[in-house]
Amino acid sequence: MSHPLFSPEVRHMLDEKNALALKAFCESLHPATVAEALEGEFTPEQIWEILSHADLRVQASIFEYLPSHLQVEMVQKARPQVAELIARMSHDDRVDLLQRLAPEVRETLLRLIDEADRRDIASLFLYAENTVGALMTTDYAWVPAHVTAAEAIDLLRAQAPDKETIYYIYVLDEPVRRPDGTPAPRRLLGVMSLRDLILAPRQQLVRELMETELVTLRYDADVEAAAELFARYDFLAMPVVDEKFGLLGIVTHDDILDVVTREATEDLQKQAGVVPIEEGYFEAAFAHVWKNRAKWLAVLFILQMFTIEAMAHFETLLEQVAFVMVFVPLCLSVGGNAGSQAATLVIRALALRQVHTRDWLRVLRREVTMAAALAGFLGLLAIARTYLATPGAILDKVPPEAFWHLVGVVTGAVMGICMTGALVGAMLPLFIKSIRMDPALMSAPLIATLSDVLGIVIFFQFVRIFFF
Amino acid sequence: MSHPLFSPEVRHMLDEKNALALKAFCESLHPATVAEALEGEFTPEQIWEILSHADLRVQASIFEYLPSHLQVEMVQKARPQVAELIARMSHDDRVDLLQRLAPEVRETLLRLIDEADRRDIASLFLYAENTVGALMTTDYAWVPAHVTAAEAIDLLRAQAPDKETIYYIYVLDEPVRRPDGTPAPRRLLGVMSLRDLILAPRQQLVRELMETELVTLRYDADVEAAAELFARYDFLAMPVVDEKFGLLGIVTHDDILDVVTREATEDLQKQAGVVPIEEGYFEAAFAHVWKNRAKWLAVLFILQMFTIEAMAHFETLLEQVAFVMVFVPLCLSVGGNAGSQAATLVIRALALRQVHTRDWLRVLRREVTMAAALAGFLGLLAIARTYLATPGAILDKVPPEAFWHLVGVVTGAVMGICMTGALVGAMLPLFIKSIRMDPALMSAPLIATLSDVLGIVIFFQFVRIFFF
Repeated sequence: MSHPLFSPEVRHMLDEKNALALKAFCESLHPATVAEALEGEFTPEQIWEILSHADLRVQASIFEYLPSHLQVEMVQKARPQVAELIARMSHDDRVDLLQRLAPEVRETLLRLIDEADRRDIASLFLYAENTVGALMTTDYAWVPAHVTAAEAIDLLRAQAPDKETIYYIYVLDEPVRRPDGTPAPRRLLGVMSLRDLILAPRQQLVRELMETELVTLRYDADVEAAAELFARYDFLAMPVVDEKFGLLGIVTHDDILDVVTREATEDLQKQAGVVPIEEGYFEAAFAHVWKNRAKWLAVLFILQMFTIEAMAHFETLLEQVAFVMVFVPLCLSVGGNAGSQAATLVIRALALRQVHTRDWLRVLRREVTMAAALAGFLGLLAIARTYLATPGAILDKVPPEAFWHLVGVVTGAVMGICMTGALVGAMLPLFIKSIRMDPALMSAPLIATLSDVLGIVIFFQFVRIFFF
Repeated sequence: MSHPLFSPEVRHMLDEKNALALKAFCESLHPATVAEALEGEFTPEQIWEILSHADLRVQASIFEYLPSHLQVEMVQKARPQVAELIARMSHDDRVDLLQRLAPEVRETLLRLIDEADRRDIASLFLYAENTVGALMTTDYAWVPAHVTAAEAIDLLRAQAPDKETIYYIYVLDEPVRRPDGTPAPRRLLGVMSLRDLILAPRQQLVRELMETELVTLRYDADVEAAAELFARYDFLAMPVVDEKFGLLGIVTHDDILDVVTREATEDLQKQAGVVPIEEGYFEAAFAHVWKNRAKWLAVLFILQMFTIEAMAHFETLLEQVAFVMVFVPLCLSVGGNAGSQAATLVIRALALRQVHTRDWLRVLRREVTMAAALAGFLGLLAIARTYLATPGAILDKVPPEAFWHLVGVVTGAVMGICMTGALVGAMLPLFIKSIRMDPALMSAPLIATLSDVLGIVIFFQFVRIFFF
């Protein structure tokens, strides 16, 4: 996906100060392609010089596609230029950019931006992270209900025809004021698609054309809930409303695609016991990654220490039959593996709302049967292994009459630990969810750690049964 | 997201055979909402009865939103009705449905569908799974290059104004024939958005309006590559072409959202050592899930058996200092945890193309430093733990002069195993990718298993250093 072919050409244009060629390069390709050709190849200063030849609107769209760390660097080099670009960036992307800047840089920038844009930015700044409000753009197309289709098209032409979001047109009520006299957002009456508007008779009223069965998002809804609605309804955009159904903004399909990709990364990292890292692999600061990994490693390490207590408890047994110790890592690993499978399946099913906490009994029934079926299978493998191929060094220590006891211990422990691991893995995420915490906290390594502690107890119970 | 309120009402309408109310229920709500209210609440026969009151086009859209297993059941109840619906379903969804049916059911259905649709279905059937071809729809809007903007709008009106995909209009060349005389797909010349077409002067030629810098997908491209382009360019749809740039179909944003969600589920399942399961948690057949879990558990179990060999190898040491054995599960777990963190971070970065195999040296350098920093931290925890709180049962066995040796073994093993686990976890996915296999095969449990075997060797090396 990289464009190594463009870079030498662009470098040549830059050296020659070929303004026309640079303008053509910026304006004829898709902004994402231009951004890709520039990132990593040129310094922020050079990128400013290249961009400066293009139309401001094109500059803004290329700038939007640059990776965030580069945007921040570029802002620090040339604040006045950025202020101009910001006025032309899409409303949600520019708030994202400003949020990543140091407060003092943000302040100087905001002072260079005109009143109306500043007010719009301030209102988007209010919404909490991970809510629909923080994701939305205020850059939507709208018309009042009383105009005709032909008048509506004229209104859209006037309303800046470059809105990306022109394919759904929102129909809004008359302006309203709050009791204190300040203007409140206009109430959302309906929506129509650009297609319906174009195909409608010219004199038909918007009121008759619009769809009034609306699927809307509250500004404080979680972005994951929004992603789910997009997946279900195949919308291009969804309106965001306040308590009184006033239209605040819209969320578009491309932002949702980014959310879904980011959430998937977070879920994978949580499953591996890493506090989620938002930046790319090489972009993330070393200390930040270290902290996010060390935190969970420490928690797991401390929990895992209970295996010491557990084993110390069986110290006397251990000394008498030291030879069975060689089977401990094998038996313990079964619980961790079966447990992380069950946990991941249940956590993902919860995230996709295929399973709810009220289904716990159904999940329990299914997982008990599944765990038994898996345990039976592994039990057979364990018998085969211990019977056929116990290493000679161990066999010498096992009195011949005790050999079947050894087979019994390993098989029993493998089956018991497999069942315990799978059940802990399946039920803990449901329990965590039912106390309104994030089920993804029950990461695979955490399940493995819990199942290790239980596994040691189970293992030595079987030792006790078969040898004493 | 469920609509328990609708179900009793609908049941009431059904009992009363209130055709008008049922028609209104189906036609006034969004098809996804109707589908949600019906699934799980009514039998396939009842759903057929409810749908029968609505317009055929509405029936088709509701049917598209039902879960796949229910669609298959419904087909088996009423083939002639389904044949009618299929003619009205979107082209990609109906191929999906037909692919899930038993071959003989599919055959009878296809015989009931008219010639043109049958040919269209047959052509979509040709594409391999997980390719763009299998995901695309042939239901796109197009015009020739020589017409004016006004003529193009008239052509679109005639071309079925209900295409979901009317927002991008493809400009195609004159018809072409293959050497053998059969018609070949028309060549793609350009694309324009409905917005640009509407806003253009009526007499302007499409040729002058269209964008000719095209981003296209080859029919045999991987769907993940398509998802990446959508995330990068924020498109609503992308054209799919053959070797000669003939337009075969388009891929739309909603299908890509489904792909990204499905891929995320697969990646999570692979990371937990489960062969991916496509169906929902409760929908998947028990035997299928068992097989997909048992397969990996068996592989891991067999690999983990090497821990037996490894420990048996150190059997003599083991008997002499049985008391250090209680620290084995703790030390081994560190490698699995650090390894699954590293593996998940690298695998995800590879999937998002933040990291490429050619970056291996950069990854190695970063992970060595990271592993050392994590190992140092865990080493401190290990010293604290062994020094402050070795259980009495163990302390009794340790000769006082050997206590610091014990601290040395545990600390050394924890640090060595942490580094080994993290490095194996980071580098193995890169190696697997470089031999063109799926790096997600290096699941967390597999890394943990490999690191357990190495961990035992490391642990006993430290035992040998400090005690003998």
